[in-house]
Amino acid sequence: MQTRAALLSHARDTLGALRREGRYREFAHLEKLAGRFPVYRWHAPQGVREVTVWSSNDYLGMGNHPAVLAAAARAVEAHGAGAGGTRNISGTSPLHAALESELASLHGKSGALLFGSGYIANQAAISSVLEALPGFIVFSDAKNHASMIAGMRGAKGAQKVIWRHNDLADLEAKLAAAPAAAPKLIAFESVYSMDGDIAPIAAICDLADKYGAMTYLDEVHAVGLYGATGGGISERDRVAHRVDLIEGTLAKGFGVFGGYIAGEADLVDYIRSVASGLIFTTALPPSVSAAALASVRALKQDNARRERLAERAAALKSALDAAGLPRCPGPSHIVPVMVGEAELCRQVARRLLEEHGLYATPINYPTVPRGTERLRLCATPFHTDAMIADLVAALRAVLPARTVALAAE
Amino acid sequence: MQTRAALLSHARDTLGALRREGRYREFAHLEKLAGRFPVYRWHAPQGVREVTVWSSNDYLGMGNHPAVLAAAARAVEAHGAGAGGTRNISGTSPLHAALESELASLHGKSGALLFGSGYIANQAAISSVLEALPGFIVFSDAKNHASMIAGMRGAKGAQKVIWRHNDLADLEAKLAAAPAAAPKLIAFESVYSMDGDIAPIAAICDLADKYGAMTYLDEVHAVGLYGATGGGISERDRVAHRVDLIEGTLAKGFGVFGGYIAGEADLVDYIRSVASGLIFTTALPPSVSAAALASVRALKQDNARRERLAERAAALKSALDAAGLPRCPGPSHIVPVMVGEAELCRQVARRLLEEHGLYATPINYPTVPRGTERLRLCATPFHTDAMIADLVAALRAVLPARTVALAAE
Repeated sequence: MQTRAALLSHARDTLGALRREGRYREFAHLEKLAGRFPVYRWHAPQGVREVTVWSSNDYLGMGNHPAVLAAAARAVEAHGAGAGGTRNISGTSPLHAALESELASLHGKSGALLFGSGYIANQAAISSVLEALPGFIVFSDAKNHASMIAGMRGAKGAQKVIWRHNDLADLEAKLAAAPAAAPKLIAFESVYSMDGDIAPIAAICDLADKYGAMTYLDEVHAVGLYGATGGGISERDRVAHRVDLIEGTLAKGFGVFGGYIAGEADLVDYIRSVASGLIFTTALPPSVSAAALASVRALKQDNARRERLAERAAALKSALDAAGLPRCPGPSHIVPVMVGEAELCRQVARRLLEEHGLYATPINYPTVPRGTERLRLCATPFHTDAMIADLVAALRAVLPARTVALAAE
Repeated sequence: MQTRAALLSHARDTLGALRREGRYREFAHLEKLAGRFPVYRWHAPQGVREVTVWSSNDYLGMGNHPAVLAAAARAVEAHGAGAGGTRNISGTSPLHAALESELASLHGKSGALLFGSGYIANQAAISSVLEALPGFIVFSDAKNHASMIAGMRGAKGAQKVIWRHNDLADLEAKLAAAPAAAPKLIAFESVYSMDGDIAPIAAICDLADKYGAMTYLDEVHAVGLYGATGGGISERDRVAHRVDLIEGTLAKGFGVFGGYIAGEADLVDYIRSVASGLIFTTALPPSVSAAALASVRALKQDNARRERLAERAAALKSALDAAGLPRCPGPSHIVPVMVGEAELCRQVARRLLEEHGLYATPINYPTVPRGTERLRLCATPFHTDAMIADLVAALRAVLPARTVALAAE
């Protein structure tokens, strides 16, 4: 077989099908402006213009915090651009060690470990745990992130049981049905990225205790944002001590880059010692470690910023509701506006950008199930009332009447 | 079962066994000093002292190049600390697009795609390719990197055939034995990281043509270092156009962070559209993209730096040979010194560091096979004759006489 021709043909067919379905992803070229967040410069084929971004995961604007930028710049000057090696091969700096201490302390754990991303943290940590004991069964929430699923898929010999999203009765039924002697891990998230709903962590820990299971909690969309010091929903709900492994990111609430896990020191040390995705990859650059450390420290003390985020999210929700726009209800800072068709979703986003200077990413399958395509909006502390009013007016202009009417029912 | 207790017990047993075998990895805390590379500040429990690092993968010292540092600092000031989203969710900046163009051009390809690391690039690209057509067979060099193996393991339905390292006859026998109708991928590296030997790329491409296979080449230890413009061994050997996918890193020769692939634009676009490890992860930070772009551009024109690297590697090899030290022969800049036992290797490295102020990482199983434990040395353009003389003297002092005697045979 001529593999090249067959593969290229398959690639072109797939790209054609994605285009026809409206699911082909075009990456808008958006230039972040440090001093003016959430205003970006959009580099379009027809020219450059300023737009307001409504789909940033720099939820608190920490990527533009003066102390974070100063730390990054100082680290570049003092330590250069790259770490120059894996953690084991000359790539561990005192900054990495300090950041790991800070993250362990943030979650009240005795150990923490950095990874190149939250994706790798989930994949490497989950597969390392599941491969540690024979016959492991992982109980995975149906809406878990792709990176957690990658960790489960990658674990040889482990069995995966999916429980209905945030459904305690279904989780318990499945725990009860599993062999009592099998090691068990319950894997779930706190804030779910695409719906913005929140898991009942304490109740899940109760079930874990009852059935002898361990708990693995992805707090990627919560760290920095919730809890008195930014430790996430597990801090807010005072249950961090009951969760075995907490996974987080430095790239969203903390505004920088990289991922981590926190847990019991020996367990973290075990993962450090066996995880391929940690051992065989270059350590985070000095500027990233320094900026993340500054961000975690600043946010520990900056409850005002978290309160402002909550207030802005509430203001956005109220404005959408008052305008009769089809918002998905939820208690978090993530505000999905339902559209329901891939091609329509793409067109709505394009019109928002081209006609109104507003950027909101269309979220399509496989990120969400077909039929639930949406715009995913986040008001950061830097989104003003005027920006919210502009967004609502633009959404009323570009969303088809039937979508808006459905929401009003 | 009480999973937590069982897992912790397994973790502690494993850590104990690693310690007993001398394979427990302790990360030395090494502070990179931008202006003084390869001199670092070692933060030891007993205090801070300056040491010379012989195990950096910042092979050319580009992590300390003034133009690279200036680009990183400017990007932090202008664009902030983080990208704030995945490539699709507001995270693509004009810097990402420019860097991808530059990398495509470096390898003479019509497309390139950035990833968070070389590890993720290999894992995501290889599994995406292998899952594209049913019945794919991947022919994997026996010494391929863990990240390539992760990509093969993660590909559902693909079959893996391992051929003897750099052995064309074995590769051909295995290609010939496979069904003619099956799609085939030959996956290999150019410079092998732990031995420093180099693949016969042209001859492998000949076999690929003969058997209708595609080629996937990891140039992680070669990009920036070899070829007239830093395109790697495939550029040096004038065969880049014959390789379907070239994978590289921005974290070694280019001195920054991140990974990439380059290839035919539609194939790269296909991988961009389906690869979970790209879709679900935050884009590289502005400072990383800007620094990497500056580094790639600077190295395109800086053959003097590549020549200096080759000259320094030759000087190191000559000095080791003249002193009768057990060097593993090889044509590249990577110079392994064989020790042969994990615990001995660890002790030799510790004595080099504590008694001589020289850092060289002990490389143990699983990175290399048991019985081939080694120190892996790299002389960068910034390692002086005096540093080489110090290293040779120290190695003679700390390597057991029998190891040195064996080498002299």
